[in-house]
Amino acid sequence: MNSTITTQYTITDGGISSPEGFTAGGLHCGIKKNRLDLAWCYSQVPAVSAGVYTENIFRAAPLIVNQESIGIEHKTQAVLVNSGVANACTGHQGLQDAYAMQRILADKFKIPLHYAAIASTGVIGTRLPLDNIACGVDKINNWDQSKEFEQLERAIMTTDLVPKRVSVGLIIDNKPVTIGGAAKGSGMINPNMATMLAFITTDAAIDHDSLEQLLKQVTDATFNMIAVDGDTSTNDRVLALANGLAGNCVLSPDHLEWDKFAAAFSYVARELAKKIARDGEGATKLIEVTVNNAVDITQARKIGKTIIMSSLVKTAIFGADPNWGRIVCAIGYSKQLLDPNLVQIRLGPITVFQAGVPVQFDKAAAVEYLKQSTVKIDVDLGLGACFATAWGCDLTYNYVKINAEYST
Amino acid sequence: MNSTITTQYTITDGGISSPEGFTAGGLHCGIKKNRLDLAWCYSQVPAVSAGVYTENIFRAAPLIVNQESIGIEHKTQAVLVNSGVANACTGHQGLQDAYAMQRILADKFKIPLHYAAIASTGVIGTRLPLDNIACGVDKINNWDQSKEFEQLERAIMTTDLVPKRVSVGLIIDNKPVTIGGAAKGSGMINPNMATMLAFITTDAAIDHDSLEQLLKQVTDATFNMIAVDGDTSTNDRVLALANGLAGNCVLSPDHLEWDKFAAAFSYVARELAKKIARDGEGATKLIEVTVNNAVDITQARKIGKTIIMSSLVKTAIFGADPNWGRIVCAIGYSKQLLDPNLVQIRLGPITVFQAGVPVQFDKAAAVEYLKQSTVKIDVDLGLGACFATAWGCDLTYNYVKINAEYST
Repeated sequence: MNSTITTQYTITDGGISSPEGFTAGGLHCGIKKNRLDLAWCYSQVPAVSAGVYTENIFRAAPLIVNQESIGIEHKTQAVLVNSGVANACTGHQGLQDAYAMQRILADKFKIPLHYAAIASTGVIGTRLPLDNIACGVDKINNWDQSKEFEQLERAIMTTDLVPKRVSVGLIIDNKPVTIGGAAKGSGMINPNMATMLAFITTDAAIDHDSLEQLLKQVTDATFNMIAVDGDTSTNDRVLALANGLAGNCVLSPDHLEWDKFAAAFSYVARELAKKIARDGEGATKLIEVTVNNAVDITQARKIGKTIIMSSLVKTAIFGADPNWGRIVCAIGYSKQLLDPNLVQIRLGPITVFQAGVPVQFDKAAAVEYLKQSTVKIDVDLGLGACFATAWGCDLTYNYVKINAEYST
Repeated sequence: MNSTITTQYTITDGGISSPEGFTAGGLHCGIKKNRLDLAWCYSQVPAVSAGVYTENIFRAAPLIVNQESIGIEHKTQAVLVNSGVANACTGHQGLQDAYAMQRILADKFKIPLHYAAIASTGVIGTRLPLDNIACGVDKINNWDQSKEFEQLERAIMTTDLVPKRVSVGLIIDNKPVTIGGAAKGSGMINPNMATMLAFITTDAAIDHDSLEQLLKQVTDATFNMIAVDGDTSTNDRVLALANGLAGNCVLSPDHLEWDKFAAAFSYVARELAKKIARDGEGATKLIEVTVNNAVDITQARKIGKTIIMSSLVKTAIFGADPNWGRIVCAIGYSKQLLDPNLVQIRLGPITVFQAGVPVQFDKAAAVEYLKQSTVKIDVDLGLGACFATAWGCDLTYNYVKINAEYST
């Protein structure tokens, strides 16, 4: 099962249903034509849960319902996700529909209403097809056995081209612990389609406050550091469930192996985030921008995000053009205090800018480097000791095609 | 000469050298191949001057030199602009070169050094070709007569497709006053090319503090409200010169006809800004977003700019897709406090969103509307009485082509 060994955790071939006691699946309920459009995930026992929600002020109905339900006991036992319709900008009716969807899930899995989490992704402004969802949920008959995480991954996709999963194994208190995850993304908001969604499950025992804090910190460094087009959707959400079936002593920052767990959890989130960036609409390349030696992490993140969101940097990378001027320019308008004379920029191994002025470099080698499927841009501010990484993708003809030729 | 009559001022066919006492021209000095690349503008008498400069921290050398010189006496008598090389990111050498360019201009026009303003636009990180500039300046032989404002407009272009000019006439203290302007833009920063530049001249008499304040206010509402790709260049600048030859009583906000002058000045800036937006790289349409009934002007401007910079809105307009969901989404992530249930959105005359939910509208009519060369998006926040307008352009295949296929 396992492939790569890292220091503290093992990357495995699993997914969201790999942790002990989790099951998952996906099916077609008729919201979309000929494609899976309804996904579910279940835990044998109620799992400690935490969520991070979009900052978009037009927050979609399912997010409002979930935030409310998780707030009651910080526990979730089942998740139901539909794609095709986002249930966003649907007003009071949309909220009623979201409650109804939650009820369908709770009744089927025989769990308290507030243990039922729901998510929707798809067209904005259209009512949720509750009949389809009810029929689909009715068809789930293997909810205590199914380990079909790939069906879930496919059922939550919108304009995504590839399903996105990560899983790792590690040892906590001499017990095997598994963390699994699934995500969808593509455009931050697609042809009237919304959303980045990510779900992380683990059989580790962890107290709620620690999970919530960890999820928030990790999200800031991973999902919040990716940008396809800079648009934050109405439905963005990350949800983490920890059911404790691994039998370890309850994790918190006081636990001796907390750092190990946090690193593994962080890896899962980061890999999911990178997969979302790489599969951005029309993308041909993953761009990874690391900003080093910043005064603080906020500065490093702001500059990293500014570079990754620059249309001019994104088109230059698409064209394999070592156009460092655009990177300098983006750093310059990131509204961060810095000394231009200390700035260094590298494209992969090639230094192109140093001490505020361009340096001679092998242009052919730089062009070759930029033709690779992963492009790394390193910026050194020469000011402090903090760093951050941001991920994005190139801006291509296909991005314009996908987003201009779609008709609402 | 004049074409359209408005309430207080007349739109004329002139340009930057139309105000009394101003001359201008452009020529080829060999920085670019076969295209005009050196422009100049001169006033018979020293003109009161004010500038607004880029906020990019990598501010180009000519801006530093100018800001310093204008600071001495708030007066400018001649301006020299080269295109092809931006003299940005050129370190100490670049600063020396900018001083040398200023000296060439001052010597030729026999004016004090600090009356000589310079500007550069073009490739970042390359040394200024001082020999070409010196030879070019040497060739200027009609500097007290030439009214060739179109030559100036062409000589400052980089990837611009059309020259940009505006001029108006008005009466102040029963004296005819003229205001003229020229600008270049295209990408905020182009294939390693920089910059939006705008120059406004007038023969009105105005005191320096009033001119500076007016220029700042007007720039915030016009040049700072346009976005082609959101990238703020290292060389952006607006420069205003007022030589007083119209013979009016010196203008200041206490002058009875101040509002009339301010409106005319504002019109010139706004039209130049709109021309820059419409000629954005690859653009096929001008997009005008007006945000009404905001709590304050800052909120209106932030939301307007967020919409105009959304790649998803820009591609939708390119594709003539009445995709109001993307506009809602952009409003939602603009980080402004508002009530979603009060928001209304119109595409031209067609209401597509009201009270937080979509409304039925004639889709075919909306598509037809979006095919026009100017597209207006109106947002009503229903909160207060403030408003702002932002201008931009659509995002097209040609934007990607121009910026990806260029090779540094």
